[in-house]
Amino acid sequence: MKFNNRNVYVSPKAIIGNNVKIGDNCCIYDNVEIGDNSIIANDCVIGEPTSYYYNDIENYQNPKTSILKGALIRSHSIIYADSIFGENFSCGHRVTIREKTFFGKNCRVGTLSDIQGHVTLGDYCWLHSNVHIGQNSRIGDFVFIYPYVVFTNDPTPPSNICIGPTVGDYSQIAVGAILLPGVQIGKHCLIGAGAIVGKNINDEMLVLGSPGKEIKNVREIISRHSGDTPYPWPYNFNRGMPWEDSSYVEWLKNKIIE
Amino acid sequence: MKFNNRNVYVSPKAIIGNNVKIGDNCCIYDNVEIGDNSIIANDCVIGEPTSYYYNDIENYQNPKTSILKGALIRSHSIIYADSIFGENFSCGHRVTIREKTFFGKNCRVGTLSDIQGHVTLGDYCWLHSNVHIGQNSRIGDFVFIYPYVVFTNDPTPPSNICIGPTVGDYSQIAVGAILLPGVQIGKHCLIGAGAIVGKNINDEMLVLGSPGKEIKNVREIISRHSGDTPYPWPYNFNRGMPWEDSSYVEWLKNKIIE
Amino acid sequence: MKFNNRNVYVSPKAIIGNNVKIGDNCCIYDNVEIGDNSIIANDCVIGEPTSYYYNDIENYQNPKTSILKGALIRSHSIIYADSIFGENFSCGHRVTIREKTFFGKNCRVGTLSDIQGHVTLGDYCWLHSNVHIGQNSRIGDFVFIYPYVVFTNDPTPPSNICIGPTVGDYSQIAVGAILLPGVQIGKHCLIGAGAIVGKNINDEMLVLGSPGKEIKNVREIISRHSGDTPYPWPYNFNRGMPWEDSSYVEWLKNKIIE
Repeated sequence: MKFNNRNVYVSPKAIIGNNVKIGDNCCIYDNVEIGDNSIIANDCVIGEPTSYYYNDIENYQNPKTSILKGALIRSHSIIYADSIFGENFSCGHRVTIREKTFFGKNCRVGTLSDIQGHVTLGDYCWLHSNVHIGQNSRIGDFVFIYPYVVFTNDPTPPSNICIGPTVGDYSQIAVGAILLPGVQIGKHCLIGAGAIVGKNINDEMLVLGSPGKEIKNVREIISRHSGDTPYPWPYNFNRGMPWEDSSYVEWLKNKIIE
Repeated sequence: MKFNNRNVYVSPKAIIGNNVKIGDNCCIYDNVEIGDNSIIANDCVIGEPTSYYYNDIENYQNPKTSILKGALIRSHSIIYADSIFGENFSCGHRVTIREKTFFGKNCRVGTLSDIQGHVTLGDYCWLHSNVHIGQNSRIGDFVFIYPYVVFTNDPTPPSNICIGPTVGDYSQIAVGAILLPGVQIGKHCLIGAGAIVGKNINDEMLVLGSPGKEIKNVREIISRHSGDTPYPWPYNFNRGMPWEDSSYVEWLKNKIIE
Repeated sequence: MKFNNRNVYVSPKAIIGNNVKIGDNCCIYDNVEIGDNSIIANDCVIGEPTSYYYNDIENYQNPKTSILKGALIRSHSIIYADSIFGENFSCGHRVTIREKTFFGKNCRVGTLSDIQGHVTLGDYCWLHSNVHIGQNSRIGDFVFIYPYVVFTNDPTPPSNICIGPTVGDYSQIAVGAILLPGVQIGKHCLIGAGAIVGKNINDEMLVLGSPGKEIKNVREIISRHSGDTPYPWPYNFNRGMPWEDSSYVEWLKNKIIE
């Protein structure tokens, strides 16, 4: 049904792995490497040249772009050159990811998300739809970011300062939250919907409001729906996680031994 | 000018009505039915296979997708298989609508909106640009939703709970509002710009703030611009509504007789 | 690498300047004029017909669209007919700009931004990613608008009133701010992240909160990062500005003499 090889452009300088499918109307530019068993759906641009290209189209050399094995890039996504995507990366439609973005393994990015480049993310990060990550952000492992969250980086716009937020492992950033330039969010935090966070946040904190304030330890949160204490969440959620077939406790033990 | 039949793919298993126009670079996949007098503008994907497709490309059967007569789908929109669109559906550019979305008749969806599927909407719903509707949302008739509104569904992210909001007939959700998981909004409500709504809302309530609070009955709202009392709005607005050629009062009377 | 002339449609009624590059899969419709040394990247639609087209496809005449010299339109952007773009206009990916939008010179628009048409912007306006500008907005010179800002125009939705915000020269509208219908923002203002502005704002005001309030003169803002007073910003920021090679003070002097 799909993958009819209509109107596809693959650069002779691209390296395509085994069992890779490339959708109709795709462009795969110079020096892109796509790992085995990956799927690039229709209408994608992979290895989009950086802005230097337009300065000197004749002499521009496209930096290397590495998409490791098992990727699923959904349609209409634009991925700039000079980035690395760890194993099993997947994304939704119309995603834009600029240069010097480094994803760990098993990451996901939702439809319409816009990653501005010069960003590092750990393993198992899940970004939902329409997330905006400004340059110079640093995101740990197992961080989930929900729709319409914005990571900013200019404290006194406009300026030439560019200091993005930092988010520790396991933290959750709920819908519509704004992280102000340079804030450091600890591990296992929950940033509530619509919070505007301008101060550094300690580990395991629930943050609500505008300006965002530390309300309590996430361990004190009681679910109105289940009556349980859902945080830290890895004890209660395992879908797609590396502890899916055991438990977070077991997985942590083995990780420490490693 | 448009509709030059360049680079168009229509599955032999699609059923295309009379006087249907299909734009350049479109893909119409298996088991899509498009009603008479519809326009699918350029670069659209209709009947996008669900995620099951990637699990078993060879054996996947695409579910049926029904777009009833009189549709206008603007360019670059992606509509997944397994949805139904009532008569006279129209949408803007770059709309993404996932599987199991059920629209009534005379609905509109704005540019960049992202409907995550498993969603039911009534008749005459108007979603403006860049609206995000999470799974398991239920929306009545004559509901208007403005840009950057988010309907959420996970009360303790991440979890496996998925309970979307419910919105009653005639309610208006203004720009940037966030409806938290499972909230029930009554009929004829007005949710103000940027409100974050975590509690159920009675009929005819104006809701403002974060957390969103019931401020007063919408009948008490006085327009600063006209000095009038504009709500409930159907008494004062009829463009595109079924009472356009009579009045809301007359239309209600006839509706009750029906 | 790019610009391979694959699947390109250029109307015989379009006027293309010297040294213009047009990317693969582009459509350039009737009565578009593109100035010298412009680049239209791949998958763009320029001169998209207005909604009148669908009312009478046979007899529709496409209004003129003028893109002046030195433009850089990045991929997947949709620009409607009946707009004018001053010299050196540039935009990101997937931008949507509707009819009767008038940009001055040296303006920039970020990825995913959605300009609803019937909008006037001055010179040197920089709109970042995912900005939504409603109809009947008026924006001065040197106005910068950050991601997820919304300009609204209907005071009592739904109604037939459409009064957009007005923003004075040099003002900065930070991420996620909402300008309510008809508000007038003075010159040299800073509207803070997430502010919801419903009242007119005097010149040089810092505005924070929901509802947005005038906090103090921007001259009183002290940067936590540098310890300096960064506002009014033109004294401290010159990248891409017409005073880049002299100073704002010198430039102002010469401007007054002109």
